[in-house]
Amino acid sequence: MRNLTLLTDLYQLTMMNGYAETDMADREAVFDLFYRPAPGLDFAIVAGIEQAIDYINNLHFDESDIAYLRSLNLFGEKFFERIKKFRFTGDMYALREGEMIYPYEPIVTIKAPLFEAQLIETALLNIINHQTLIATKAMKMANETTGAISEFGLRRAQGPDAGLYGARAAMIGGCSSTSNVLAGKMFDIKISGTHAHSWVMSFSEEIEAFRAYAKLNPDTCLLLVDTYDTLKSGVPNAIKVFDELKANGHKPLGIRLDSGDLAYLSKRAREMLDKAGHTEAKIFASGDIDEHIIATLNAQGAKIDVWGIGTKLITSAPRPALGGVYKLAEIQNGNGEWEPRMKFSDTPEKITNPGFKTIYRIYDEKGMAAADLIALRGEEIDTTKPLTIFHPIETWKKTTFEKYSIRELPVCVFERGKQVYKVPTLKETIEFAKQSKGEFYEEYKRLINPHVYKIDLSDNLYDLRKALIIKNQK
Amino acid sequence: MRNLTLLTDLYQLTMMNGYAETDMADREAVFDLFYRPAPGLDFAIVAGIEQAIDYINNLHFDESDIAYLRSLNLFGEKFFERIKKFRFTGDMYALREGEMIYPYEPIVTIKAPLFEAQLIETALLNIINHQTLIATKAMKMANETTGAISEFGLRRAQGPDAGLYGARAAMIGGCSSTSNVLAGKMFDIKISGTHAHSWVMSFSEEIEAFRAYAKLNPDTCLLLVDTYDTLKSGVPNAIKVFDELKANGHKPLGIRLDSGDLAYLSKRAREMLDKAGHTEAKIFASGDIDEHIIATLNAQGAKIDVWGIGTKLITSAPRPALGGVYKLAEIQNGNGEWEPRMKFSDTPEKITNPGFKTIYRIYDEKGMAAADLIALRGEEIDTTKPLTIFHPIETWKKTTFEKYSIRELPVCVFERGKQVYKVPTLKETIEFAKQSKGEFYEEYKRLINPHVYKIDLSDNLYDLRKALIIKNQK
Repeated sequence: MRNLTLLTDLYQLTMMNGYAETDMADREAVFDLFYRPAPGLDFAIVAGIEQAIDYINNLHFDESDIAYLRSLNLFGEKFFERIKKFRFTGDMYALREGEMIYPYEPIVTIKAPLFEAQLIETALLNIINHQTLIATKAMKMANETTGAISEFGLRRAQGPDAGLYGARAAMIGGCSSTSNVLAGKMFDIKISGTHAHSWVMSFSEEIEAFRAYAKLNPDTCLLLVDTYDTLKSGVPNAIKVFDELKANGHKPLGIRLDSGDLAYLSKRAREMLDKAGHTEAKIFASGDIDEHIIATLNAQGAKIDVWGIGTKLITSAPRPALGGVYKLAEIQNGNGEWEPRMKFSDTPEKITNPGFKTIYRIYDEKGMAAADLIALRGEEIDTTKPLTIFHPIETWKKTTFEKYSIRELPVCVFERGKQVYKVPTLKETIEFAKQSKGEFYEEYKRLINPHVYKIDLSDNLYDLRKALIIKNQK
Repeated sequence: MRNLTLLTDLYQLTMMNGYAETDMADREAVFDLFYRPAPGLDFAIVAGIEQAIDYINNLHFDESDIAYLRSLNLFGEKFFERIKKFRFTGDMYALREGEMIYPYEPIVTIKAPLFEAQLIETALLNIINHQTLIATKAMKMANETTGAISEFGLRRAQGPDAGLYGARAAMIGGCSSTSNVLAGKMFDIKISGTHAHSWVMSFSEEIEAFRAYAKLNPDTCLLLVDTYDTLKSGVPNAIKVFDELKANGHKPLGIRLDSGDLAYLSKRAREMLDKAGHTEAKIFASGDIDEHIIATLNAQGAKIDVWGIGTKLITSAPRPALGGVYKLAEIQNGNGEWEPRMKFSDTPEKITNPGFKTIYRIYDEKGMAAADLIALRGEEIDTTKPLTIFHPIETWKKTTFEKYSIRELPVCVFERGKQVYKVPTLKETIEFAKQSKGEFYEEYKRLINPHVYKIDLSDNLYDLRKALIIKNQK
């Protein structure tokens, strides 16, 4: 495993040095990692927690790290004493990978000495921002089709990790396979892929290339038909080869369209395949596809069974960042007493929620998600009594639940530095993602203007927030 | 070094298996890696070549790779015989990192047995697409300001590599530092950073936080002034602390604005600092900045000396992919004779240039870049004679150079698998990038509608391309 301990912003180290020198390093603090509302990110699918846990378990400054830091002439001896024996000794709460969540909900909450909590901010954000972004993008694509989606984007990913962890996150979001072989090996996920234009171009004739491919892959024969002319050459040649395969007792897999008008070509190709008796041959489509293109192609009656998606999924174009942040919510003062903290801002959306918090998901009588309640840790909800929740800003908007059930979303991952959470396998996480997503009515998940899901604050949290705002205005 | 040999698309391995089984694996082929015109990518700054070289030098299938591939039940014994002893034995030509280039110009040309050339496609694209994209984005930002730019994006980068190699590429593109400590250690680049809002929020009062920071960093004191209220609290408190620093013989570095209207706040803050006698204190600005925002803030007379740029630089939002491709240009037939190849398409921009090519940059009498000529390898240009170049499509558009000089852009990196190119240091590359960029008139580099730079084909290449198009149409 790579040592990513220095994968942080210099200012974290500068502040850690400051905390060491001012004897604040051991004061405990609570930080929340969450994201703010942004276009296209009405909701999100959590991903990256496993890598965040690995990162924390592996935190250590090795000799070369220390030598490098010394060479900067920025830090004092108290800092070096601490980093020599550095390890994470705090608590971490996190949402499970695959959980469908909303802005402001803490994805990770860290309760740890300032010195430690500050170091890990940048890498936690890096890992969770990235994977949550890609899982969410994949989920939006998967929502628009009953067909399968293959992740094909490695060549366009922002470096090796973006390809690898992006493929992993895409599976959590709902893709069924990736083209990325190393991701297949690392994460035990299904890989898929057939041949490229270069295969066809390496032979003198398209039909020769198809025959050679079919001979080698008689039971997984998927032919790329757009190297020369899709309908005049590619599809007719594929049909010839499929006829030959069938005559020898094999079942062709299908064809892949990679350019041109996918609505038109898929419909014509479907007709040609069906007419030739290859009704079971599937049509794969690739080429600059995103969730909106899937939706519009489906609306046009395109005959596409499997979507191969590259750039727009692996980079989440045109919005390539989740924008997650990591904000101080509570801190011990010099006497060891806890003081809640908020970041104030002229922009109301940028004001943070103070205190050490948790999240309850409230289910209606059908077991479907009806609202989330962000509460202070330790607040209990008595589900035998009705529960009234308020809109956090427009407090006249309220809802009372009579019959309902609740689930506390965060799990405890580290307790005093010790991992107490068993990381699920990726297959379990993929199942959990389906389950979490399945708890939401379709209206909450649609692409354009999804129905507004209620995210409310508990009375205690609301009162704390209000009191701090009033105090700040004095 | 990580083993990235399996960092490829499955179809590359499927095709390699096909080439092994059909005895085509040893046929040599020429592939070009280049990018096609796209909005915002009129030109590009090459980056990632060093990592591409490292990747090729380190190519090998280890035992766990082979075991994984065997478990897929997709490949034959001829394939496994080859991968056991796999190493790259071909030639590689590449543009130097930092070179300013245009669409269609081969950034990398590979001449190698098909079996090898196919494997490396995906990783070469991954590495070069990413770094070239970020270097280009950084260059566009740097072009809009005489101030310095710090790269701050690690927390929003698409995984650790995107942060690390993105920081490296940003330096090639023109940034002067990064906040990324591990990038600083790995690439020996300048790192920068001071403190976050959480530092201020950890103290009871802003002024206390500023004083503590100044005490620890008396000669590099940069204070973040927007935690509570920039003009009413942050700047006045910073001025108090700067006064105290000055009284003790230190020179304050400056303030950082991270929210609000940067044009307004920077002008007011500048006035306040100047009035207090801190004319040398610099103003740093950060918060959702891109090249267009730099341009408009400068047009509004904003007083910003240093730009801290995060998300939009490290992800190249809103266009997070370069879209580079890797296309077959020539291949040996069964008799060992070379045959040029082109990809045809109904979309003219997607037609590729056939043959084994190079690029000459043509300079005018002032030594400034005037045109690039894509030529077949082996074509000589006699600079004692006038040179006429044609527009590759509108051939009536032509230019004749009487007095000119030329430079062949690609360098030979690998010769029969042996590295023959000494990789420059990153500092040398940064110098070279300045030089390459400096060879272009400003009109070619402006943000909106840059002047069209001439990229023409040599007569021989033009004729070859035309002949293949006619042959394909028969």
